[in-house]
Amino acid sequence: MPRPAKQACATENDTICCKGNFRHKLQSVFLQLRQTSNQICAPLEIEDYGIQTMPDVSPPKWHLAHTSWFFETFLLKPFLPSYREFHPLYSQLFNSYYNTIGSYHPRPERGLLSRPTVQQVYAYREHINEHMLQLIEYANEDDWPEVFTRTQLGINHEQQHQELMFTDIKHIFFCNPLRPRYRESSHKSCIPEKLQWIKYEGGAITQGYDAAHSNFCYDNEGPSHKIFLQDFQIASRLVTNQEMMDFIKDGGYQDARLWLSDAWDIACKLGWQAPLYWEQRDDQWWHMTFTGMQTVDPHAPVCHVSFYEADAYARWANKRLPTEQEWEHVARPLPIEGNLREQDILQPTSNSTNHGLTQIYGDVWEWTQSPYTAYSGYRQTAFSDFSSEYNSKFMSNQMVLRGGSCVTPSNHIRPSYRNFFYPANRWQFSGFRLAEDNS
Amino acid sequence: MPRPAKQACATENDTICCKGNFRHKLQSVFLQLRQTSNQICAPLEIEDYGIQTMPDVSPPKWHLAHTSWFFETFLLKPFLPSYREFHPLYSQLFNSYYNTIGSYHPRPERGLLSRPTVQQVYAYREHINEHMLQLIEYANEDDWPEVFTRTQLGINHEQQHQELMFTDIKHIFFCNPLRPRYRESSHKSCIPEKLQWIKYEGGAITQGYDAAHSNFCYDNEGPSHKIFLQDFQIASRLVTNQEMMDFIKDGGYQDARLWLSDAWDIACKLGWQAPLYWEQRDDQWWHMTFTGMQTVDPHAPVCHVSFYEADAYARWANKRLPTEQEWEHVARPLPIEGNLREQDILQPTSNSTNHGLTQIYGDVWEWTQSPYTAYSGYRQTAFSDFSSEYNSKFMSNQMVLRGGSCVTPSNHIRPSYRNFFYPANRWQFSGFRLAEDNS
Amino acid sequence: MPRPAKQACATENDTICCKGNFRHKLQSVFLQLRQTSNQICAPLEIEDYGIQTMPDVSPPKWHLAHTSWFFETFLLKPFLPSYREFHPLYSQLFNSYYNTIGSYHPRPERGLLSRPTVQQVYAYREHINEHMLQLIEYANEDDWPEVFTRTQLGINHEQQHQELMFTDIKHIFFCNPLRPRYRESSHKSCIPEKLQWIKYEGGAITQGYDAAHSNFCYDNEGPSHKIFLQDFQIASRLVTNQEMMDFIKDGGYQDARLWLSDAWDIACKLGWQAPLYWEQRDDQWWHMTFTGMQTVDPHAPVCHVSFYEADAYARWANKRLPTEQEWEHVARPLPIEGNLREQDILQPTSNSTNHGLTQIYGDVWEWTQSPYTAYSGYRQTAFSDFSSEYNSKFMSNQMVLRGGSCVTPSNHIRPSYRNFFYPANRWQFSGFRLAEDNS
Amino acid sequence: MPRPAKQACATENDTICCKGNFRHKLQSVFLQLRQTSNQICAPLEIEDYGIQTMPDVSPPKWHLAHTSWFFETFLLKPFLPSYREFHPLYSQLFNSYYNTIGSYHPRPERGLLSRPTVQQVYAYREHINEHMLQLIEYANEDDWPEVFTRTQLGINHEQQHQELMFTDIKHIFFCNPLRPRYRESSHKSCIPEKLQWIKYEGGAITQGYDAAHSNFCYDNEGPSHKIFLQDFQIASRLVTNQEMMDFIKDGGYQDARLWLSDAWDIACKLGWQAPLYWEQRDDQWWHMTFTGMQTVDPHAPVCHVSFYEADAYARWANKRLPTEQEWEHVARPLPIEGNLREQDILQPTSNSTNHGLTQIYGDVWEWTQSPYTAYSGYRQTAFSDFSSEYNSKFMSNQMVLRGGSCVTPSNHIRPSYRNFFYPANRWQFSGFRLAEDNS
Repeated sequence: MPRPAKQACATENDTICCKGNFRHKLQSVFLQLRQTSNQICAPLEIEDYGIQTMPDVSPPKWHLAHTSWFFETFLLKPFLPSYREFHPLYSQLFNSYYNTIGSYHPRPERGLLSRPTVQQVYAYREHINEHMLQLIEYANEDDWPEVFTRTQLGINHEQQHQELMFTDIKHIFFCNPLRPRYRESSHKSCIPEKLQWIKYEGGAITQGYDAAHSNFCYDNEGPSHKIFLQDFQIASRLVTNQEMMDFIKDGGYQDARLWLSDAWDIACKLGWQAPLYWEQRDDQWWHMTFTGMQTVDPHAPVCHVSFYEADAYARWANKRLPTEQEWEHVARPLPIEGNLREQDILQPTSNSTNHGLTQIYGDVWEWTQSPYTAYSGYRQTAFSDFSSEYNSKFMSNQMVLRGGSCVTPSNHIRPSYRNFFYPANRWQFSGFRLAEDNS
Repeated sequence: MPRPAKQACATENDTICCKGNFRHKLQSVFLQLRQTSNQICAPLEIEDYGIQTMPDVSPPKWHLAHTSWFFETFLLKPFLPSYREFHPLYSQLFNSYYNTIGSYHPRPERGLLSRPTVQQVYAYREHINEHMLQLIEYANEDDWPEVFTRTQLGINHEQQHQELMFTDIKHIFFCNPLRPRYRESSHKSCIPEKLQWIKYEGGAITQGYDAAHSNFCYDNEGPSHKIFLQDFQIASRLVTNQEMMDFIKDGGYQDARLWLSDAWDIACKLGWQAPLYWEQRDDQWWHMTFTGMQTVDPHAPVCHVSFYEADAYARWANKRLPTEQEWEHVARPLPIEGNLREQDILQPTSNSTNHGLTQIYGDVWEWTQSPYTAYSGYRQTAFSDFSSEYNSKFMSNQMVLRGGSCVTPSNHIRPSYRNFFYPANRWQFSGFRLAEDNS
Repeated sequence: MPRPAKQACATENDTICCKGNFRHKLQSVFLQLRQTSNQICAPLEIEDYGIQTMPDVSPPKWHLAHTSWFFETFLLKPFLPSYREFHPLYSQLFNSYYNTIGSYHPRPERGLLSRPTVQQVYAYREHINEHMLQLIEYANEDDWPEVFTRTQLGINHEQQHQELMFTDIKHIFFCNPLRPRYRESSHKSCIPEKLQWIKYEGGAITQGYDAAHSNFCYDNEGPSHKIFLQDFQIASRLVTNQEMMDFIKDGGYQDARLWLSDAWDIACKLGWQAPLYWEQRDDQWWHMTFTGMQTVDPHAPVCHVSFYEADAYARWANKRLPTEQEWEHVARPLPIEGNLREQDILQPTSNSTNHGLTQIYGDVWEWTQSPYTAYSGYRQTAFSDFSSEYNSKFMSNQMVLRGGSCVTPSNHIRPSYRNFFYPANRWQFSGFRLAEDNS
Repeated sequence: MPRPAKQACATENDTICCKGNFRHKLQSVFLQLRQTSNQICAPLEIEDYGIQTMPDVSPPKWHLAHTSWFFETFLLKPFLPSYREFHPLYSQLFNSYYNTIGSYHPRPERGLLSRPTVQQVYAYREHINEHMLQLIEYANEDDWPEVFTRTQLGINHEQQHQELMFTDIKHIFFCNPLRPRYRESSHKSCIPEKLQWIKYEGGAITQGYDAAHSNFCYDNEGPSHKIFLQDFQIASRLVTNQEMMDFIKDGGYQDARLWLSDAWDIACKLGWQAPLYWEQRDDQWWHMTFTGMQTVDPHAPVCHVSFYEADAYARWANKRLPTEQEWEHVARPLPIEGNLREQDILQPTSNSTNHGLTQIYGDVWEWTQSPYTAYSGYRQTAFSDFSSEYNSKFMSNQMVLRGGSCVTPSNHIRPSYRNFFYPANRWQFSGFRLAEDNS
């Protein structure tokens, strides 16, 4: 699950202007963010807010409360002396995993909580909003740098949960045989996009967060450090549904020779035969979307696949996945634009450009072949405060994904951004593109 | 779980008068029943309706819909030609376990269904009510006997689910750290009740359903048949919380010698140290009630214990549990009165009478030492229609409970009534009284 | 699992003559018994002695040691002052489940013990034998009644484990793809046996252990008590493999309507499609025997079925299983003879008699429809000594089987003998015969 | 689990001389290897050969057979035309995981196989030996390069299983409450060794297999490739038992802040309180060794810790684990010597040198912070032949260990050797040394 981390080095930000009356700007950015979370939930019935379909999924109500708890715990309680907590038990109910904050409600049991009600959670959000506005307005100058930094982190944190709300709602609706629609359909067919191979020269390259791209980053994006890249080439576009159907037809899901050992075990155990959300009816593939069940568009990028499926596909295609270093090298010079959340398409599409690299940002998070670990020079410390628990305690068994998806806000993504999930996870908007050595 | 069964032999009924304009009376009884289910849920928030805290528990919304599905499936579809089903998928979503009706939604996943909404479920109930009234009014004379019998069964079925709604709501509220109240407290202390031992002579005795007590029964209550009873004596009242606390203090929950082998395994695995819903705070026992957490009243009957705990207690006390035959023999001459649902106390209490047998009906279901099996002469058939699936397919691994509880309607209970649950179940209003051989 | 229980009332015994020089006779009976256990294991390789294929199965080595531990713990330590235990840890390693004796090695981990070696276990047996002979010879008169009673129980206990050795060895050999043979084949085809229905009149009948049949019994066979039986009829022979194949062909294993609710759950979970040990190869059924894989003889009694399968078959056949009372009533006047262990056939066969009741004793244990519970008048006490832990702590969730099998010694079985296993157990020599009401 | 991989580039080898009469030398090396495996098992009782204490552990008998199966499957069957397999079912029973070879016996059920017997397995080994000698002698010149390469791989494969035999035997003996000894004690106290920090300069460095060190490698050690290293320093010796005891005393196992998220989950679930094999008796730590239970020597390197424990310790010590690149850089110039198997100590010890780097080779495998992945330029292919299944299909979720242990043969280890296990594995001889950035 994407989890925000400590602010490393930001001094200004395109979303959060720090010059002039930046306290008022920050208030405005903050309120805009909070309103967006509410809007994401606007199409929901009250009953939808409480459902947890698997341990990975949290009820939408929980996301709304947890993101508020974050501001309450790390900002209002330590910095707003007059602040009194909304409810004494919320600090336990809505703590996600911060062991340093105290005990927390077991994750798999988040769906058992009918109370607080949705109305009470919205009241909690209002309560937090009011006091956060006060804090931003009146924090004294000594506290301000820390208040600013933490508020910025809280905003990025809530953006991540906004993406999770989308993916969790999709799963909740899929698990219901009634297959509700999140919104009405406005489906357009995708135009086929030719696959090209783009060559890159290797060499000594500096990577990691660069203030030129964004004035905020998580600590796992740094420090800036030098690496060696070999020459490589990368596919101009993402792997498509049609290509995945070819893999399926060729028996890819039944051929142990294509799968990593752990992958084969889990694919057998869970009975994977196609990407998550796919269903075959009369020789036609359908899949769940925010507009209910739709036929699978062959030219759209494949989505909701695990790292294991991406890796098996690549082996079948005699290619490989790119490393996160290769991906970052490719992405660095490109503008941050694509099918991101602001496009309001909410599903991956093809790109009509038909020349050069496409879909680097948006559409789907791209699985890389890189395990999620600390960069050289990253300072490992005990997870003794909230920021150190944010990112680095997840540095085992997960794989890096890059580039954002159709439900990622454009001001949240950057070339150095490292998302990470377990290699078997499929409920995120995750797809992939191919790479190969340039020999 | 208590499950209603086929009507055996009823021609009239104190709740359903069959003489004169009994169709109108039946309509009135039916509407009253349906209204009661809604009233039980009246204190709930919309969010409470969808929660399933363990596989045994069903969301209140599911109970409301399932009881309606029962009427739709077994009455409206076969007997009301003009009837069109409310929603094509409801027959799958709200089937409980009737294999003969088709596939059904997995029981442990009932809590994952945000849709249909509570409002839609109430609309479904209204839809069923309207058409049931039509059917009762206009069913032709050929169909009538079957329509009447099935309606009577549907009413008894919904009464059982009303009891389950109470027990499930209690569990749902208990699992929430906020411990919501179902209603405001009106708690009164219980008066201590002296324990007496009442002697009974054995001999050749006829048992099973007797039309003199009730003109409805489930098939598992018959046929009437002869048994031998040895002389025995039985406790005048139920075992109390104080007595259970003595057992706890004496190390009863830690002493393997008191427990059946299977009992000890499950008590260790689940860490039982006291009845369900009990919590110790500063040397005082508290427990969950419909009015939130309350101190345990020492003189009230112990409740929410499994058969295994009742059996271990009895061994500790050098007594035993009664057989269901002994219980029935004792109960048969007694009036059907006690702390039943109409008293609206909603928890077991002591009885101030202080002489003779008390608490036979109401307060708590009484565990017996009898496994739930068919009576001699019971005709075993394939579970090929709804009524044969109702009761007899559960005749393995469960134990019989007798006498009804504080949430059982008084017109639902009778001397021959056999409730049954697994010996480890605790979330029902289940307690026990002691017996011993008369030697 | 069959477990011996406390001796109730024996003063003499056809196997253990107590008159005249009965101490020497008891020594002889004891040694014979001990030798038989060794002989059962004679065909084994050392490697076979240590295998545990499922928690229900114990390694043959464990049986050999545990039966010795029983004599050591309950006889030598309390009654032979000079006795020093063979090894200080054996009391933990070879205790089966006696909580009152102290902690014990976890049952599912019996197969992890390479030491003590087979040779050491045989040395342990020799050590016990020598000292038991001493004890029987020299026990003083005060101790003698208890020594005699416990020795008798120890002998019956080891006989039960001899039967378990056979069933466990069969399972161990079956789980090995090499399918070893316990001994060479001497297979003879079974003669078909006509099914007749034998009628019995009901009435007031006395049941339970009767000293006229045997001068030993377990406590669960008493006390003698009166019951009522309705008229009934019972099948003259056991259900055959051919009949089971008809059930299979008719889709019996796929038809939920034939199965109890718990039965259907477990049959689906474990994928039951035929009795245990059956395998289909080219439209021919084969099954595991002590002489390796053999074709299934259609006229032999079906074996290695659970209660659940027996019950489902009976429902399919529009019959039912007998109660244990009916079975005992039928068996009581019959001689104790049949395909028991002394016949050395080691698998069930048909009987050529072709008139009257056959196969009551031997061939297979017959599932009844009776849950294993205490008889009326049975005195329930805390499981505070070894005898009370022997039988009655298993009185929940198990079903009664009657009549012994082809691996039961003839001096171990009697009309009142109650064997008991969980309704899903299949690895014993368990089959069934049908009954029905006489209407 | 260490698994051998395809030979990349060997033409000669210090263990396998290819010059002159190298076929005879290869025969001699081969026989020596095979004899060593038998010698490792010499102290075992027949009963010990068949035990599997957890899925990760294989019975010693299985190792003996599986290593033979490897030669049979990949050499004798394809290259020795006259060869007839020893037993038709062995190819299924002793295949470890090669999906391309066909189905295989489930790993967790290896301990259920009493047959083939130990004697038969030794006969199988003899059979393989004879035919391998023939093959080496008479393989034609066309086949020879492949025969040589595969034989070399088979030899390295069996060496890896020799190490596993040691670790599995230790676990088998530990799980038995009798705690058998593999051999008699010759325990000597360790001399304390001062901790020094050795500084290294970073820069552009070439890593991967180098023919100068060894003329054999697995494919996962190549290709040779360039990396960047930052300046760093590394501990002169391994972390000791005393240091681990300090960590324990300081509450390290109870402090969530020190543990990776996945680590904390598994440490809680499995109840880790100390390294594997440690037991506390009266304030003294004991641990299992090949000479039975011994007190923990404070100055010996800590062993049988998981990556997770090593990582938590490092965080507690405000240091980190080295990367595999740092380790390789340090090791490259050093002679391959240390407490390896030839020393016949069979447990890690301190080094008396007291200056400079010690214990790089031998004692314990050293956990690094590097996930096991392909080097840049490694050619990923379908796992379509045995060599490609050897190493690369395990490239997910495992961590790299370096340097060999006290049970690794000295001709099996080299600077580029990459061992890999899951981060929670503890039953290998695994320990660690600390590193830190040089800032």
